[in-house]
Amino acid sequence: MSATITQGNTLPRLEAPVLLRIDHVGIACRDLDAAVARYQQAFGLTVVSQEVIAEQGVREAMLQVGQPDGPVFPGGPASWVQLLEPLGPDTPVGKFLARRGEGLHHVGYAVADISAALAELAPKPFRLIDERPRHGSMGASIAFLHPADLGGVLTELVEPAAG
Amino acid sequence: MSATITQGNTLPRLEAPVLLRIDHVGIACRDLDAAVARYQQAFGLTVVSQEVIAEQGVREAMLQVGQPDGPVFPGGPASWVQLLEPLGPDTPVGKFLARRGEGLHHVGYAVADISAALAELAPKPFRLIDERPRHGSMGASIAFLHPADLGGVLTELVEPAAG
Repeated sequence: MSATITQGNTLPRLEAPVLLRIDHVGIACRDLDAAVARYQQAFGLTVVSQEVIAEQGVREAMLQVGQPDGPVFPGGPASWVQLLEPLGPDTPVGKFLARRGEGLHHVGYAVADISAALAELAPKPFRLIDERPRHGSMGASIAFLHPADLGGVLTELVEPAAG
Repeated sequence: MSATITQGNTLPRLEAPVLLRIDHVGIACRDLDAAVARYQQAFGLTVVSQEVIAEQGVREAMLQVGQPDGPVFPGGPASWVQLLEPLGPDTPVGKFLARRGEGLHHVGYAVADISAALAELAPKPFRLIDERPRHGSMGASIAFLHPADLGGVLTELVEPAAG
């Protein structure tokens, strides 16, 4: 009996991918340069990376929140505001803007091992947009989970680049 | 000339409230218990606080991301998923659900000193929803900034309770 209770208490923890922290919020905007300027003016955030990710149809800027000169590691305190401008109206972010306007597009959580995280989710009733990791911002490996199973929130898992 | 350049590079940083980390994402849901169960099943997150905040018209659960047994401090790595169920259709979250459906409602950033952060924002062209701090979840002092000036994102500043 006590063995059953112990198993019941520990199993969900062992089976779930451990989220280390909120890695970033993705914000859809019509004009990337204007959005960057606004966030810099409001909060003095530093742009640490600016990329065109053609595969995702976006031009993006990553602005670091916290510890601009401190260490960045998977479980560490740094997090990012990711500003996303669509490369065209037929991209996912372009369609999002047409439907909902500017605003929060997705949230990303850091994990230590993206492949292990996807393997732990695979047997559960959560739809994976990416069944295998793909390349994300700043050298990270990422995978998206479907919003319909997570309260309408497009959710990204991020294994930051080893640094 | 070099003095001017130095001033230009350092002034915005001195005047801006320092965001320590992404503190939480607020997610609007129709059924709090169902949303909690879904996030627990997906990620094994622990509910650390559940409250009715009548003033904001919500019932909410805070689920801790990262370091469930580790230290929690303002600049630390812990962050939260805040699930929000409206107390009625005429509340801000009730109206959000009617207009946009379930999903990301706002983002909260941790600051060390909420009064100082509001004072630093006051002379800038950003509308404050709260000109003075008010009580938030888990004993925090909070203030909301208007989404129109921040790329459509309802933004909250959070000074966590001294722990």
